[in-house]
Amino acid sequence: MKIAIDGMGGDNAPKEIVEGVFSAVHDFPDVEFTIYGDEEKMSPYIQQHERVKIIHCSEKIEGTDEPVRAVRRKKDASMVRMAQAVADGEADACVSAGNTGALMAAGLFIVHRIEGIDRPALSTTLPTMDGVGFDMMDLGANADAKPENILQYAIMGSIYAQQVRGIDKPTVGLLNIGTEDKKGNELTKAAFALLKEADINFIGNVEARELLNHAADVVVTDGFTGNMVLKTIEGVAGNIFGMLKEEFMSSTKTKMAAVMMKNNLKNIKTKMDYSEYGGAPLFGLKAPVVKAHGSSKANAIYSAIRQTHIMVEHQVCQTIDSTISKEN
Amino acid sequence: MKIAIDGMGGDNAPKEIVEGVFSAVHDFPDVEFTIYGDEEKMSPYIQQHERVKIIHCSEKIEGTDEPVRAVRRKKDASMVRMAQAVADGEADACVSAGNTGALMAAGLFIVHRIEGIDRPALSTTLPTMDGVGFDMMDLGANADAKPENILQYAIMGSIYAQQVRGIDKPTVGLLNIGTEDKKGNELTKAAFALLKEADINFIGNVEARELLNHAADVVVTDGFTGNMVLKTIEGVAGNIFGMLKEEFMSSTKTKMAAVMMKNNLKNIKTKMDYSEYGGAPLFGLKAPVVKAHGSSKANAIYSAIRQTHIMVEHQVCQTIDSTISKEN
Repeated sequence: MKIAIDGMGGDNAPKEIVEGVFSAVHDFPDVEFTIYGDEEKMSPYIQQHERVKIIHCSEKIEGTDEPVRAVRRKKDASMVRMAQAVADGEADACVSAGNTGALMAAGLFIVHRIEGIDRPALSTTLPTMDGVGFDMMDLGANADAKPENILQYAIMGSIYAQQVRGIDKPTVGLLNIGTEDKKGNELTKAAFALLKEADINFIGNVEARELLNHAADVVVTDGFTGNMVLKTIEGVAGNIFGMLKEEFMSSTKTKMAAVMMKNNLKNIKTKMDYSEYGGAPLFGLKAPVVKAHGSSKANAIYSAIRQTHIMVEHQVCQTIDSTISKEN
Repeated sequence: MKIAIDGMGGDNAPKEIVEGVFSAVHDFPDVEFTIYGDEEKMSPYIQQHERVKIIHCSEKIEGTDEPVRAVRRKKDASMVRMAQAVADGEADACVSAGNTGALMAAGLFIVHRIEGIDRPALSTTLPTMDGVGFDMMDLGANADAKPENILQYAIMGSIYAQQVRGIDKPTVGLLNIGTEDKKGNELTKAAFALLKEADINFIGNVEARELLNHAADVVVTDGFTGNMVLKTIEGVAGNIFGMLKEEFMSSTKTKMAAVMMKNNLKNIKTKMDYSEYGGAPLFGLKAPVVKAHGSSKANAIYSAIRQTHIMVEHQVCQTIDSTISKEN
């Protein structure tokens, strides 16, 4: 198996990216890695290894770059070269912590969609209180969606939950304003009707309040709503943890309490931390394209590689391809 | 000033509702209250007071009732009678903790819309880390919205923030997938263009992640998205507080830490508790119709009455009416 890595993407590149690869290389002896990036900048972190190849790139895509233009113009950018390797069959999958929009553009224009998929979807596994997690999509690959797109998200999410996360007959919920069948806006009402007829384990509407209580294994919604919900989860969790920190640091007494609660607070943080589940795969492309969080450290890159490895091994993209062509 | 109260609405009716009214009666000496509901059930909580009138109603709307049908058929329901009192000019405003959908229906069919308002909006003041709070609307009065509706939400929210919350030139933000001007789905792109030209202090797009950091004084969005974000905030906060409680109760040591942190944890809960700001007004109706949270205790009813009092005193509905007719 061959995995291509964007060595220059994300806030902590190239250090944490390169270190993440080297932390994974021993655990995945069947993988050959190619890291694309600025050889000089990456060199302090590179070790000699027969299964790690370095390819120098003269450009990189910045977080502030306009995605489509950057992908079209920066032909020698590490992210573009990485995606090109997948398109050329030199790699089976790729991982980048760089500009999300640019990675989606690289996926669309270079790796290409699976035939029959109108809109690829960005997905991630989010934490649940029971520790199992749920996959939500679309997180913003497409701001607008048609009911048919949401049906495809549900099919792709089911395949992923089953093959990568090992969940038998994963439950699929439609994110909605209430749990009753007829609730919702025009989009969710139409999507509900399609999901009900589909060959998936559709359990109906789920409410945003119940997401972290494991309302379903796979939760589908349009990219605008998914993005809002994801960012609200991140924002609220960050705000509450911020307030907690402030209160724990406010006096000698509370500082003592903080010491007494150290492991317990860690438990909570670990439960809410979803980087352990891996990155955010773009579904609907011909090969796995995995977006690692922009602030990824080496262990998050390791997780994204582990996840990518399972996606290739279990032929997730091939299964999506054959399932969608059967559907159409 | 006359305020009509639905004595039978909400999980804790009639006890907490009636007690809420009597806790407010002394602080608002210019208000005459009429409580609608089952006289027998309310009687244990009723005190004799010259400014509190009780009107017996033989029916009530349940939380599980289909809103429109219930409002049409249960002519003697406490909520319907309360709204009718406003329509007949016997009350200036009304407060209910009952079925949200039914209250919206009662508002639309009995109190009626302000001319020129296509869609009333449900709004509430949510907490921010700096303690100021922000108003978000629509929270789900209408699952679908047109750009023009969102413009009207912004105008109504600005008037409310200014006149009731006393914020000079309140900033208005459009909830969106990114802060850049051209971000968004079709709806937000079109709404952005309208908001930019409106006579409000529009500051552009705001992200869900920054809401509790006081991204704007007023945040507008369609009712579907608003409902998702509100419920996500509630859900995540509830989940984290639940985990905290569990960890604090897990051993003798952590129980000691909980005692040491008691006041600090209370600070955080208070900061996140938005019932203090009052209930959720329905904007765009001819008179203030305020939805108190379904789980309201007496103090939440008190806050909703205080808020309703200010809305009547500052003639919020009249200002919305004249502003909208100028706009059209």
